[in-house]
Amino acid sequence: MPDTLSKPKYEVCLVGSGGVGTIASLVLTKSALARVTVVLRSKYNYVSEHGWEIDSVDHGKISRWKPYRVVRSAVEAATVERTTNAENKDVRDHAGQVKEVEYDYVVVATKALPSLNPVAKMISPVITPGKTTVVVIQNGIGIEQDIVKAYPGNVVMSSVSHIGSEVQEPNVVVQVGKDASKIGPHLHGGVDDSISMAKARSFVEMYVAGGAHTCELVSDIQTARWEKLLWNGTFNTVCALMRMDVGEMQRSKGRETLLVPMMWEIWRIAEAAGHAMPQSIVQWMAYRLPDDCAYRPSMLLDLENGRPMEVDVILGNALAKAREVGVETPVLSVVYNLLVLEEWKIGQRTAGET
Amino acid sequence: MPDTLSKPKYEVCLVGSGGVGTIASLVLTKSALARVTVVLRSKYNYVSEHGWEIDSVDHGKISRWKPYRVVRSAVEAATVERTTNAENKDVRDHAGQVKEVEYDYVVVATKALPSLNPVAKMISPVITPGKTTVVVIQNGIGIEQDIVKAYPGNVVMSSVSHIGSEVQEPNVVVQVGKDASKIGPHLHGGVDDSISMAKARSFVEMYVAGGAHTCELVSDIQTARWEKLLWNGTFNTVCALMRMDVGEMQRSKGRETLLVPMMWEIWRIAEAAGHAMPQSIVQWMAYRLPDDCAYRPSMLLDLENGRPMEVDVILGNALAKAREVGVETPVLSVVYNLLVLEEWKIGQRTAGET
Repeated sequence: MPDTLSKPKYEVCLVGSGGVGTIASLVLTKSALARVTVVLRSKYNYVSEHGWEIDSVDHGKISRWKPYRVVRSAVEAATVERTTNAENKDVRDHAGQVKEVEYDYVVVATKALPSLNPVAKMISPVITPGKTTVVVIQNGIGIEQDIVKAYPGNVVMSSVSHIGSEVQEPNVVVQVGKDASKIGPHLHGGVDDSISMAKARSFVEMYVAGGAHTCELVSDIQTARWEKLLWNGTFNTVCALMRMDVGEMQRSKGRETLLVPMMWEIWRIAEAAGHAMPQSIVQWMAYRLPDDCAYRPSMLLDLENGRPMEVDVILGNALAKAREVGVETPVLSVVYNLLVLEEWKIGQRTAGET
Repeated sequence: MPDTLSKPKYEVCLVGSGGVGTIASLVLTKSALARVTVVLRSKYNYVSEHGWEIDSVDHGKISRWKPYRVVRSAVEAATVERTTNAENKDVRDHAGQVKEVEYDYVVVATKALPSLNPVAKMISPVITPGKTTVVVIQNGIGIEQDIVKAYPGNVVMSSVSHIGSEVQEPNVVVQVGKDASKIGPHLHGGVDDSISMAKARSFVEMYVAGGAHTCELVSDIQTARWEKLLWNGTFNTVCALMRMDVGEMQRSKGRETLLVPMMWEIWRIAEAAGHAMPQSIVQWMAYRLPDDCAYRPSMLLDLENGRPMEVDVILGNALAKAREVGVETPVLSVVYNLLVLEEWKIGQRTAGET
C-alpha cells in the first residue's frame, strides 16, 4: 500500500489526469486530508508502473510520484483494490451495481467534450447520491447543468483554474505557471445553499493546505467563468481557426478587427445573464500580452493535432445563453460556425482512420 | 511578321494572359477584326519562343499559337516593333512619352489586386485619352471606378466571364468550360452613353465573330457582377478560409450555417445598390452543385500556394458598398476580416523570402 494516511478525512476520486488534473491530485494528496484515487485511461499501464515525473513551479521536482491509487476506470475506482486476480474477478462481476468506495469528492479535470464524453455519464460509477460532491475544473460555460440534472441531490462545485501545466509523453508533468484558481459552489434547488457552501469551503481549505499557490473561495463562480471566457472565446478560438499564435494575432490587427468585438459580445451576454464584469476588463484581457508572445493556445494545439476541440463549452454554450437572454452575437456566431466546420474535418479524418 | 491581316479594324492590347486572357486573345485574333498585342511578364521568354499549347473545348487543339505580338511590358506594347537592337534602344528612350501604337481596346484579364497592382497605373502606357476603350475581365465589384477616375474621357467596359480555363506550366492552356460571358458598358459622365454603347457593341460583335461560345451584350453589367459575387463572395472565400473543396463545404453543412446567410447579405447589398436580383437565384447558386463536387475554388488555390488573393475586390468593395447603402453584413464582415489575416500571413511569408 502507498505511504499515505490510512484514515484520511476525505475520499477523493479524480478523473482526467492531464496537466491540470495531475497537479490537482498532487495538491490534494499533499494536504494529508484526502486519499486520492486517479482514473487514468491511455496512460494507466505506464503511470501505474513508473508514476509521474513532476517538475513544478509550485512543488519542485518529484520523481516517480503516484497518488494513493491509480485505476483504469471509474468502475474500478468504485471498488476496493484486491490483491489477487481471483478476487478482482469477483469484484468486476459487481461493477456498476455495488459501490465499495463512497467518495466525498469527485474532481473532473478532463477536456470538456460534452457530446463525445459527457461528464455525468463518465462519473456515474463514483457518485453516491446525496453524498458525493462533484468539482468540475474545466473550461467553458454551462458545464454544471448536466451534472445537476443527473445528480439533483448532490453538491456541485466549479473551479476556474489558471495554471500553466502540461503533460509531456509519456509521464512527465511540467508546471510552469503557478496554480491559481477560484472555486465556488454551483448553487441549485436540490441542495441547501448552506451545505453547498460548506462543502466548497472544505474543499478550498484542503486545496490550500496542499500547497497550491492560491485558491480562492468565491460566491459567484460564474462571473469568474465568464471572465476566463473573454480569453478562451476569443484568442483561443481565433488563433485556432487562423493557425496563429498570440503575437501573430496581435501584430496582424486581428485583435482589433475580431477579438475585441468578440470580447464585447461575451461581456454583454454575461451582463444580461446576471454576471456583469467591469468594462475595463476587456481592455486588460485584450492588451495584457506582448506582441511577440509566441503562446499557442490549447485549441490551436488540438486543431493542429487533429484532436477534438472544446468548441461546444467555450462558444456553443455561450451562444445558447446569448439567445436565451437576447444578446446579438454576430462575430462569435460566425467564428463558432467556422470552428464547427473544423470539427467536421477532424471528424472526417478520424473516421477515415478507424 | 505573323500571318494576320496587315490592316485590321482594331488594335487590341491584352494584359494578363492567364487561362481567361489567353483564350480571349485567341478569340479576338480569330475574329480577324483585331490585331492583338499581349503583354506577358514572367512567361515572356518561354511563350515568345514556343507560343502557347492550347487545348480548348471551344477551339480544339492548337500548337505553338501566338497572337500578333507578344511583349514584355505595356511600355513596349505602345511602341512599334523594331528589328534591330539599335532601333529598339532608340524607342525605349521615348518610352512613356511617345505612343507609336494607339489602341482601340485594352483588355485587362489580370487577377484583380488593386493594392498590389493597380490596373489604372498598369495600363497607362497603352491608353490614348479619348480613344482607347478599357475592357476589364476581372472578378469582383467596383473595379471600374479607378479606371474611370484615371481616364475620365475614355469608354470603360466590363465583362463577367464564366470559363473553365487554366494555364499549366510552362505554356499549356487547358479550357474545359465553355467561354460564356456577359459584357456591358460601364456608363459614366465623361463619355456619351451612345458612344459607350457603340464601343461595347463592336467589342461583343468582334468577340462573337471570334468563336466564343456565347458573348452577350447587356445594359446592366453590374447586376451580372453581383450575381457572380453570390458565388465568389461565399463558396470561393469560405472554401479558402476552411481549406475545403465545394463538396466538403456542402457535406459539412457550412453552406447552410454560413454561405446561404452570406448570399442573402450580398443579395441585399445589390438590391440596395440598385441591382436587384430574383430571390430564387440564392437557392440556385447554393444548390446547383452536387455534394461530391471536388472543385477547389481559385481563392483556395491562391491561399494554398501562398499567392495574393482577390479579397479586396470580392469582399472589400462589396462591404464598402454595403456601408454606403446601409446594409448590415455580419457574416461577410467576419469572413472578410479573417481573410485579411490570411493575407497578412501570406505577406509575412513573402516578406521572409525576399
